[in-house]
Amino acid sequence: MGVATRIEQALTKAIDTVAVPSCPPRLVEAVRHAVFPAGARVRPRLCLAVAAACGHGDDKAADAVAASIELLHCASLVHDDLPCFDDSPMRRGVPSVHRAFGEPLAVLAGDALIILAFENLARELTATPERLGPLLLTVGASVGMPHGITAGQAWECEPHVSVEDYHRAKTGSLFAAATAAGAQVAGQDAELWRVVGDRIGEAYQVADDLRDVAASAQEVGKPVGRDAVLNRPSAAGELGVDGAVDRLRQLVKGAVDAIPPCPGSDQLAEVLMAEARNIMPKGLAQRAA
Amino acid sequence: MGVATRIEQALTKAIDTVAVPSCPPRLVEAVRHAVFPAGARVRPRLCLAVAAACGHGDDKAADAVAASIELLHCASLVHDDLPCFDDSPMRRGVPSVHRAFGEPLAVLAGDALIILAFENLARELTATPERLGPLLLTVGASVGMPHGITAGQAWECEPHVSVEDYHRAKTGSLFAAATAAGAQVAGQDAELWRVVGDRIGEAYQVADDLRDVAASAQEVGKPVGRDAVLNRPSAAGELGVDGAVDRLRQLVKGAVDAIPPCPGSDQLAEVLMAEARNIMPKGLAQRAA
Repeated sequence: MGVATRIEQALTKAIDTVAVPSCPPRLVEAVRHAVFPAGARVRPRLCLAVAAACGHGDDKAADAVAASIELLHCASLVHDDLPCFDDSPMRRGVPSVHRAFGEPLAVLAGDALIILAFENLARELTATPERLGPLLLTVGASVGMPHGITAGQAWECEPHVSVEDYHRAKTGSLFAAATAAGAQVAGQDAELWRVVGDRIGEAYQVADDLRDVAASAQEVGKPVGRDAVLNRPSAAGELGVDGAVDRLRQLVKGAVDAIPPCPGSDQLAEVLMAEARNIMPKGLAQRAA
Repeated sequence: MGVATRIEQALTKAIDTVAVPSCPPRLVEAVRHAVFPAGARVRPRLCLAVAAACGHGDDKAADAVAASIELLHCASLVHDDLPCFDDSPMRRGVPSVHRAFGEPLAVLAGDALIILAFENLARELTATPERLGPLLLTVGASVGMPHGITAGQAWECEPHVSVEDYHRAKTGSLFAAATAAGAQVAGQDAELWRVVGDRIGEAYQVADDLRDVAASAQEVGKPVGRDAVLNRPSAAGELGVDGAVDRLRQLVKGAVDAIPPCPGSDQLAEVLMAEARNIMPKGLAQRAA
């Protein structure tokens, strides 16, 4: 079974477990709307690629970890789109959750997705209970305080903030968790792998900044030009488009160079470089080729 | 050390672990504001009372479970107070989190508290890793889909809802988890204890409805009369004040009768009856005595 199918099946299974008939139907709809149809699934694919590179045999546990990471990512998007933050009307080419279901269900769907991510870990790791705690802490740290997504988002509410801290927490943390947890579920040292995710996360953030200035709303599936409107820190704003493209390439090369020795390191390097081509806005990818 | 001190220490420890200097300071403030100063701490006290009645020796694990339950309760209050739900200006006698820190930090503080609750379990149960998964699932079910707090709150967004399902999910679920997890951390069968928490939770909901019609805002620490304004289901509205007081007493008696055989059952019965006197609005407690 291909990686993309494994991810969708793991997400479907996690949600089906709790989306039973006695659950409020509109909450179920809002949660499914937040997770399906598939976005790029960059983080779970990265997690599974690292687990495979480390020679992992327990697909069930790896799929569960990858799915939990994606559930947390979806939760962060739902809350990030709320009127009190970005007030984004669209996401993945369809109305954002609060536009489709109202603000109360958007808050609740985000909460429910966070909770489900942790429950899913506990439910799917019963065969290796000794791994649950360490994996939960890796995944939890990437979304919680002090350096996870909620903290990253909270930097937007502070009078003084370093761009690096902001991006590392808001975007990088879940990428670092994807590589760390991918290694961890394969029984490898999580910490050695964190830097790979950090650099991919930073590259992804640069690509996101580039898309915000250089792509069409149709290509991205959400409004563009928001960084300038909201006066948010942006690599494209700081370095210019060409400088940001260079930075993106350096970061991906840095990620590849940081891959620790493992059975599948060559294949993983190819995956990361293919990923870099994928995340670059289409026009720029042609220019950069 | 008394139970109240143990709870405050466990909550302080959980928050101090993540509230480090590199965390956004206003997020830290908002999280502390949501948790301190102490509310009634009914759920963690119930959890510790059950663990003690079951003859539990590992205070550290029990304290962690009790603290995680309270963190989740605080998270639900923060989100429940948001403008898109109750828009409550006050909580525990001070401004609600969104009034004190703004809506973005209120959303994020709630998210951070949910995440912290699960991290706290993983961090404090390292000595008994085989118990982490089952405890996490007990606690997670009480807040997630299909029958936890988020589902309960989501019933407010449905055109048709049974009052019983609504209250059981919105209030009862975390009480049922408090007794179930208290037994579980002591190595006892969680399911036998769930009904005790269910009944105490229902009693607490009736008391809350009574306070909403019969207490002063000063006594309660938040606005009263909100159920009628928001047209929410209420036991006091359905049964009248005297009927609701009778119902509350029956529920507490039912909870006491449901205590499974355990070394500390008599003491636990006393704790539950004292709790019932505590939660009754002051004027009604005198009338009922």
